[in-house]
Amino acid sequence: MSTTPHLVAVDWGTSSFRLWLLSADGTVLAEQRSQEGMTDVADRGFETVLESHLASLAVPDDVPVVICGMAGSRQGWVEAGYLDTPADVGAIGESATRVPGTSREIIILPGLAMRSPDEPDVMRGEETQLLGASLDRTEGARYCMPGTHSKWVSMRGSVVSGFETFMTGELFACISGKTILAHSTGGGGAVDPRNPAFASGVRDGWTRPEMTTHHLFSLRAGQLLHNWSDDENRARLSGLLIGSELSGAGVRGGETIVLVASGALERLYHVALTECGAKVHDIDADVAVQRGLNEAWRSYCAKSKNRKPT
Amino acid sequence: MSTTPHLVAVDWGTSSFRLWLLSADGTVLAEQRSQEGMTDVADRGFETVLESHLASLAVPDDVPVVICGMAGSRQGWVEAGYLDTPADVGAIGESATRVPGTSREIIILPGLAMRSPDEPDVMRGEETQLLGASLDRTEGARYCMPGTHSKWVSMRGSVVSGFETFMTGELFACISGKTILAHSTGGGGAVDPRNPAFASGVRDGWTRPEMTTHHLFSLRAGQLLHNWSDDENRARLSGLLIGSELSGAGVRGGETIVLVASGALERLYHVALTECGAKVHDIDADVAVQRGLNEAWRSYCAKSKNRKPT
Repeated sequence: MSTTPHLVAVDWGTSSFRLWLLSADGTVLAEQRSQEGMTDVADRGFETVLESHLASLAVPDDVPVVICGMAGSRQGWVEAGYLDTPADVGAIGESATRVPGTSREIIILPGLAMRSPDEPDVMRGEETQLLGASLDRTEGARYCMPGTHSKWVSMRGSVVSGFETFMTGELFACISGKTILAHSTGGGGAVDPRNPAFASGVRDGWTRPEMTTHHLFSLRAGQLLHNWSDDENRARLSGLLIGSELSGAGVRGGETIVLVASGALERLYHVALTECGAKVHDIDADVAVQRGLNEAWRSYCAKSKNRKPT
Repeated sequence: MSTTPHLVAVDWGTSSFRLWLLSADGTVLAEQRSQEGMTDVADRGFETVLESHLASLAVPDDVPVVICGMAGSRQGWVEAGYLDTPADVGAIGESATRVPGTSREIIILPGLAMRSPDEPDVMRGEETQLLGASLDRTEGARYCMPGTHSKWVSMRGSVVSGFETFMTGELFACISGKTILAHSTGGGGAVDPRNPAFASGVRDGWTRPEMTTHHLFSLRAGQLLHNWSDDENRARLSGLLIGSELSGAGVRGGETIVLVASGALERLYHVALTECGAKVHDIDADVAVQRGLNEAWRSYCAKSKNRKPT
């Protein structure tokens, strides 16, 4: 197991920053996590924030950095463009954008875009998780990547044929925090997927998604008329929104879904998918993005060497 | 046409206050509207706010007041209870609650409750509109009452067999104001129902409600990839949420829907219902609530006289 720093891998999202110092064989030598997402960082400057993390880990100046996520958006550090679907995520490294004017070598990976005239869609960050998650797979698979904006992705090997985003996580935060249901869903503790109201919400959202905006109001009425508790309502709200997403994604009983997630979200979606009769194949999201960043760097170097051997 | 003040009719909601001074035949002699809804008024006191409006219209002390809406909720002025479905809205006057300790006679009308264990629901204020709207009708009808919390009501004559609330209006405000879509739906001007994006959203929401939380994200992606405008996106968002409501309400082509609404909401729902092939029978919401409050007062007096003749 190598202990020499080889690469800094960064997943830089809208509201979070995650950095891993990797050895050549992908071993995690050190890790940094913070809330310094794109929106918080714009004022201080991306390079300043990144270098302060690297300094705290004493990362030598010649160790390169590969970044995925919203840092590559128009409002981010340097716009890193999109690969259009159908897209081979194996190509994101070759299509990376070099951050100009830095002494350290820093590259940002592109996102994916579906330019459908009626239902356009975009992702940034998940394509790198998909690269990592698909390294061991050659057959076709459907990937579920839950989050603020959940992604459902159809792949064959490393080629993304299409994907769909559902605003599930953001809707949960918005509805439980900023509507009349804030009074009926309590202080925002974690949803317990073992609460029977969660599974009940999943079933209602999955089988009758057209009733979701009605079922939401039931949380309020149920508290008034039947003393439904805040914990129960929060679990039911989460279940309704996830169930509705599973309906939109067309999940069928017996189908195998590759769930790329970690922590609390992994547990919620695992229970929800199982409730709908799907078979779940779990892949840890952190491991997937580390592997994807490492692999993207490898193909970036290979391309650079082909063009101008050093 | 009588010009003698007979009754003060008040629709006192969560975020709005509307008062009409009526003659004995229901003619509107004066009107007051403000944003002094239940939530704003709690500190100053309901009686203080009401009497200041009455003083500005020089309403004599012996003119009574009948109130419907959230002023009768547990967080309101005086809790006015519920009639349970199936409920005859003709009985809301007889079941009114007298506000105690006021020299002027003031009554608050009850709401309606559906105590279904799985899908409980409540309304406050719409039952009075329904009373007014159903005075001329004896046959069965489906009523659509759009708003912050839209109500769909099945009635035969004046009897409500059941109803369903959809959080459409509040979701529109929350999603367009408090999520990432705030950047893609602009400053909140009125939605133009003639914008083709509105009808397109209605069709998508009505035919594929399970995709609504996906279609929401398309607004963001459409702006990034195809320069969809804020106005277009706001119209599409409104159409998606209304179309999804129409799907949940089970609207079918050829069906007649009684639309109780006024102003901008009436125009949006009229276009949306027509887009789904429904026949729309319009009833002005303001007129309906005035008639309902007047009729409820009449039956309150009739009951009082029967019990203890004056």
